[in-house]
Amino acid sequence: MTQPHRDPGARPTVVLLTADGVVPPTHLEELRGLADVRECTADTLAEALPGAEVLFVWDIFSGALASAWHAADALRWVHVAAAGVDALLFDGLRDSDVVVTNARGVFDGPIAEYVLACVLAHDKQLHHTERLQRAGVWRHRETTRVAGRRVLVVGTGGIGRATARLLRAVGTDVRGAGRRPSDDDEDFGVVLDSARLVEHLGDVDHLVMVAPLTEATRGMLGEAELAALPDGAHVINVGRGQLVDQDALTREIAAGRLSAHLDVLVVEPLPDGDPLWTLDGAHVSPHMSGDVVGWRDTLSEQFRDHLSTWARGGVPGPVVDKSRGYVSG
Amino acid sequence: MTQPHRDPGARPTVVLLTADGVVPPTHLEELRGLADVRECTADTLAEALPGAEVLFVWDIFSGALASAWHAADALRWVHVAAAGVDALLFDGLRDSDVVVTNARGVFDGPIAEYVLACVLAHDKQLHHTERLQRAGVWRHRETTRVAGRRVLVVGTGGIGRATARLLRAVGTDVRGAGRRPSDDDEDFGVVLDSARLVEHLGDVDHLVMVAPLTEATRGMLGEAELAALPDGAHVINVGRGQLVDQDALTREIAAGRLSAHLDVLVVEPLPDGDPLWTLDGAHVSPHMSGDVVGWRDTLSEQFRDHLSTWARGGVPGPVVDKSRGYVSG
Repeated sequence: MTQPHRDPGARPTVVLLTADGVVPPTHLEELRGLADVRECTADTLAEALPGAEVLFVWDIFSGALASAWHAADALRWVHVAAAGVDALLFDGLRDSDVVVTNARGVFDGPIAEYVLACVLAHDKQLHHTERLQRAGVWRHRETTRVAGRRVLVVGTGGIGRATARLLRAVGTDVRGAGRRPSDDDEDFGVVLDSARLVEHLGDVDHLVMVAPLTEATRGMLGEAELAALPDGAHVINVGRGQLVDQDALTREIAAGRLSAHLDVLVVEPLPDGDPLWTLDGAHVSPHMSGDVVGWRDTLSEQFRDHLSTWARGGVPGPVVDKSRGYVSG
Repeated sequence: MTQPHRDPGARPTVVLLTADGVVPPTHLEELRGLADVRECTADTLAEALPGAEVLFVWDIFSGALASAWHAADALRWVHVAAAGVDALLFDGLRDSDVVVTNARGVFDGPIAEYVLACVLAHDKQLHHTERLQRAGVWRHRETTRVAGRRVLVVGTGGIGRATARLLRAVGTDVRGAGRRPSDDDEDFGVVLDSARLVEHLGDVDHLVMVAPLTEATRGMLGEAELAALPDGAHVINVGRGQLVDQDALTREIAAGRLSAHLDVLVVEPLPDGDPLWTLDGAHVSPHMSGDVVGWRDTLSEQFRDHLSTWARGGVPGPVVDKSRGYVSG
């Protein structure tokens, strides 16, 4: 920005949306040095918003802005401390001039490592070995070479790209699937058309779901796509639960045809009694793939730096394409 | 070899040492095309050896040659279908002119991948997550970034080098420990002196044991070395159980100070009732880290190719340095 879009002399007001029981951001004193900070929860958001330029969504699964939108009389920028902004977006926000930013970059390396951990755990049968051990059974088996395995990464944003690079570094045969097909992508080599996903699944060993949740991606891994995967294929979901037809996937796992590592689920926490808790081929983790030691610091520092840019009259970026629902590369 | 060391016209006799219940080598018909093959087990080895030039040790944990050594009246070459030759070697063989070769190279990539799987399972807490899942508990935790973790690989042979390369490819900070220290090793960067291991353990996150078992390495990870590791360190043993003071390690795991992935143990199978079966921080697998689908084919093909060299009058290599107990680089 060559032209400041706001008066750099005016001190911004930031509403910090958090929740009871949520660990607060770090660096709060630094934020207070840059701006007037109003802490609130979903219940008090409408009271906190009037006059505030900035909303910092720390309670990342909150959809509270939609119902408090009428009170957002001065809002110009919303930052969400998450990669996915699906919980935040609604038509009023989409149609407004309010800028939305997300935690772009923070989770790329951590989630890539988590996906690699899931790939290796599957191919080296670590869960099966652990089960046998705890049953007191010594049973030699053959495992699978990871080098040369065929991986399809669905989602070509920062996390998908970091995942592809890491998986290629250990010798797997990686392709991507996204909105813009390519034969010459620097991270993926080949990017397939995600709108025709069902056609590209017949030779996939590991399918990694890391797309943003939008109307275009909701349910993209449906019954037909799951059926197109070969016997023994392994699904890893670190995107959003709603990308996948979870009931259809559960049936495939129960039949012993597919297995999965699911860090995200349609309903979180996974409800009591859900068969995914107990199926041998289902490995469920509580939405933690990107949350490495220090992650709250990193998220807080990212917002602090963005706020510093904002206070000086700049616009932090890259910004979310609100009509698409993600940062468009 | 410029000079054939045997008459290339004479058909060699190969003794194949196997055991009841062991899956036989593949490519047996090809071996029979190259040589007269006598199959035997430990009990019948002494009857099979007279007149045979070649012994193919397929039952890799067998020490039967020592007691049948008196019958080895024509033996000139022993090939073991394993990386470690500790079970085979004895003074009579060491002092003889008999050439020993091993399965050098076959296990490098597979075991490197297995070690990486253990590193990631530890840092991403996959076993803990699985335990919580099976107990029906949804509990978010923070995991550890793998990039930047400090790994020490003890053993600088082919498997250790492949492991170092793979671990470096995912961004860990790898060093080696071996008999010949170096500041400029192409795979390890720094190689520390394994005779002074205890001095180099204070900052290690992951300790990978992949040295050959020799008189110099037996018990090299003893009580003092284990005590020198920092709290929370993780031991991975894919070498031989006897490299480690298993009782001392068990005590450290029981105390919650260390954890371990142990693919090899002092006694295999691990005896019933051993605390390693049940300790949360102990992850025991049945000596399978290198055994990927197709491994028997690869081992069989390696011997077939070596035998073809031998039948033409050559000596397959590289050969094991029998006084050291491994192929010396």
